[in-house]
Amino acid sequence: MKPIRIGLFGLGTVGAGVAKVCVSHRGELEEKIGAPVELTAVVDKDLTTPREGLDLAALPLTSNPEAILGDSSIDIAVELIGGIEPARTFVLRALAAGKHVVTANKALLATHGDELYAEARKRGLILAFEASVAGGIPIIRAVKDGLSANRITLLQGIVNGTANYILTKMTDEGLEFDLVLKEAQEKGYAEADPTFDIEGIDSAHKLQVLATLAFRTSVKLEDIYVEGITQITPLDIALALEMGYRIKLLAIAKSSDGTLELRVHPTMIPETSPMSAVSGVFNAVFTSGDIVGDLMFYGRGAGQLPTASSVWADIVEIARRHSAGHSATAQDLPILGRRPLVLKPMAEIRTSYYLRVSALDQPAVLAQVAGILGRHEISIASVIQKTHKRASAVPVVMMTHEAQEGNMQRALAEIDALPVIAAPTHMIRVETA
Amino acid sequence: MKPIRIGLFGLGTVGAGVAKVCVSHRGELEEKIGAPVELTAVVDKDLTTPREGLDLAALPLTSNPEAILGDSSIDIAVELIGGIEPARTFVLRALAAGKHVVTANKALLATHGDELYAEARKRGLILAFEASVAGGIPIIRAVKDGLSANRITLLQGIVNGTANYILTKMTDEGLEFDLVLKEAQEKGYAEADPTFDIEGIDSAHKLQVLATLAFRTSVKLEDIYVEGITQITPLDIALALEMGYRIKLLAIAKSSDGTLELRVHPTMIPETSPMSAVSGVFNAVFTSGDIVGDLMFYGRGAGQLPTASSVWADIVEIARRHSAGHSATAQDLPILGRRPLVLKPMAEIRTSYYLRVSALDQPAVLAQVAGILGRHEISIASVIQKTHKRASAVPVVMMTHEAQEGNMQRALAEIDALPVIAAPTHMIRVETA
Repeated sequence: MKPIRIGLFGLGTVGAGVAKVCVSHRGELEEKIGAPVELTAVVDKDLTTPREGLDLAALPLTSNPEAILGDSSIDIAVELIGGIEPARTFVLRALAAGKHVVTANKALLATHGDELYAEARKRGLILAFEASVAGGIPIIRAVKDGLSANRITLLQGIVNGTANYILTKMTDEGLEFDLVLKEAQEKGYAEADPTFDIEGIDSAHKLQVLATLAFRTSVKLEDIYVEGITQITPLDIALALEMGYRIKLLAIAKSSDGTLELRVHPTMIPETSPMSAVSGVFNAVFTSGDIVGDLMFYGRGAGQLPTASSVWADIVEIARRHSAGHSATAQDLPILGRRPLVLKPMAEIRTSYYLRVSALDQPAVLAQVAGILGRHEISIASVIQKTHKRASAVPVVMMTHEAQEGNMQRALAEIDALPVIAAPTHMIRVETA
Repeated sequence: MKPIRIGLFGLGTVGAGVAKVCVSHRGELEEKIGAPVELTAVVDKDLTTPREGLDLAALPLTSNPEAILGDSSIDIAVELIGGIEPARTFVLRALAAGKHVVTANKALLATHGDELYAEARKRGLILAFEASVAGGIPIIRAVKDGLSANRITLLQGIVNGTANYILTKMTDEGLEFDLVLKEAQEKGYAEADPTFDIEGIDSAHKLQVLATLAFRTSVKLEDIYVEGITQITPLDIALALEMGYRIKLLAIAKSSDGTLELRVHPTMIPETSPMSAVSGVFNAVFTSGDIVGDLMFYGRGAGQLPTASSVWADIVEIARRHSAGHSATAQDLPILGRRPLVLKPMAEIRTSYYLRVSALDQPAVLAQVAGILGRHEISIASVIQKTHKRASAVPVVMMTHEAQEGNMQRALAEIDALPVIAAPTHMIRVETA
């Protein structure tokens, strides 16, 4: 049987994991593929820094991308560089050279997916990306194949391990955001520049990739409302716990009546929800289909080996099909449905809200805030008034019934302009389903 | 594009669901397949009983199986009759007639899988069975494709909704088994003859199917130790809760050092385990792979539409491939690894144990029981002695450290022969990982 020849771009954390698995699991991988496997070229700028657990001298390591792009014997190019360039150029050139592509690059797919999918489609090649969302959890296959009979109505993902680690640690130990972030950076759970993780951008990338597949609608990154976790305080976490909720950074996509809403923000979810138990660096995706009902997928969302597990799942599938002489099909890539969904502006979404108002004068504040909310068609479900005798400002905490985001934003502007308000109101959206 | 023609055996609960989805989702299914779909024949003995939500007159319904087996234009035969015969004969004949087959029949696969897989392999056809394990959860695809790079080390499944409903209800309401079973039967959650569900046989069928795939080893139904939930009492459930555990009927497969253990039994699991929150008719499969780490899949394990969701996932995949002219590959079916695992006899498994000893004389019992356990290399981790002043027999409850099953069985025989023992000791295995 002709061997499957693989070219690997990027020998960073995940790339090194993919190379390690090729060494440690070669026998089983070849049995599962039904053909020999060969790592033909590994391209990285850094040829010298040791990678733990890998014998660099035994790898076909080079800094020259032409070792893959110019070698017509290579069947599958694996892109694990990350970021936009040169990853984009390498993927496009690999496809143009007739190679199937496997990538874990959610930023690239979320920003240039249409271009890459079109190139793969034009060439009749497979572009696979299981590892781009939720690391080792096979959620792309689940949505694309396992739930193919369903109209997906809901996706709710905890898809960023760094943000979830920080929120879990703040919850368990009552610590401030900045302190936990610093510790996470020291432990290697957060990057030196954590912006993508803590500002929700990485979660939005993943939501773009998953929602495009699940809802068969063109989703642009700009269509996704994004709010990070930097404003979450230990006080809000403690008050949430008191009311039976936990705060998670959720990536949410909801479809109803032909519309689709897409948002990433800190979210209060009931402690009884299966998502509330997803702690630390774990990821989970909760989804509902109109036929199958509710499902949840849980596992490691990042890390060298879990991500390599998904990269190899794609390689094995492509290699099987390539060996059998099977071409790509239209359904390998995200396809638009005949009736794409209409994107709902953020101002029109409906959800419940947690408000923590900083009051200089509690009774007056409650009356005035309730009045403003009422005028904006927002009704209060419950109120907690914390009486701290000597504090100059005391929190008045409210949960609202479901209301419209636009109304809430207008109400918040009015509330924060009241003379009896000591500091901007903290608002956190609440999802109960 | 040539239409995909489907023949459906069995218009029971799941079959009616499959037909309903064909009506309600035809447009999307055809988009996802890339070809028209036609339900060409539906075969059932019962041609007259109305099926809710289905217009029987609009279906090509017949009692003659030759309408499928003898129609060479039918591409895919869907077997939803259940049980062994005539399902087995219909599947074999459909394969012999060159049709791909989709089945949800775990009993058939668990007992005659080798024969069916061999026939499909010989004919170059796909035999798909996503719906046979855990209903709507796409666990077959996850194990076969999503985790293909991994050596699976653990499968732990709550895969029988009836048993889980009964245990959940007993736990939440403190009720006796018989009472809850009767109520479940009245509500339609348990069948008139509930033997397969409450005795663990259905769970063993599903474990056989899943473990054969996951461990690439020939698993015979007889190799699986099976114990049902009929002996579980509200007292054991209450004592478990007191110690921070819940009792679930688990199907367990564990691999280590080239061996494989397979068992279905009531199991105490920590309340903090994600599996302990799986309530009512929901199913979940927890699995560990050597690369990916821990994963959990959660969803509806039974019911008309969740099961139909998985049946349609298989139909869509086969139809796509059939339309593209792609043949089956060896890896579509369970394949034996080059190094199959050696099955570990039940007597050699190791786990922790909960023992509830009924003592006529507490202090004496504790000393004698501890002595017996010690002689069998079983050490006690903790003891709870319940003092009920006027009861003639009082429970002495123990948790052991990990011990060998054979030793435990020998110790139990000796314990129950002691004169100070009022009733047979209740033993429940404990899994902490």
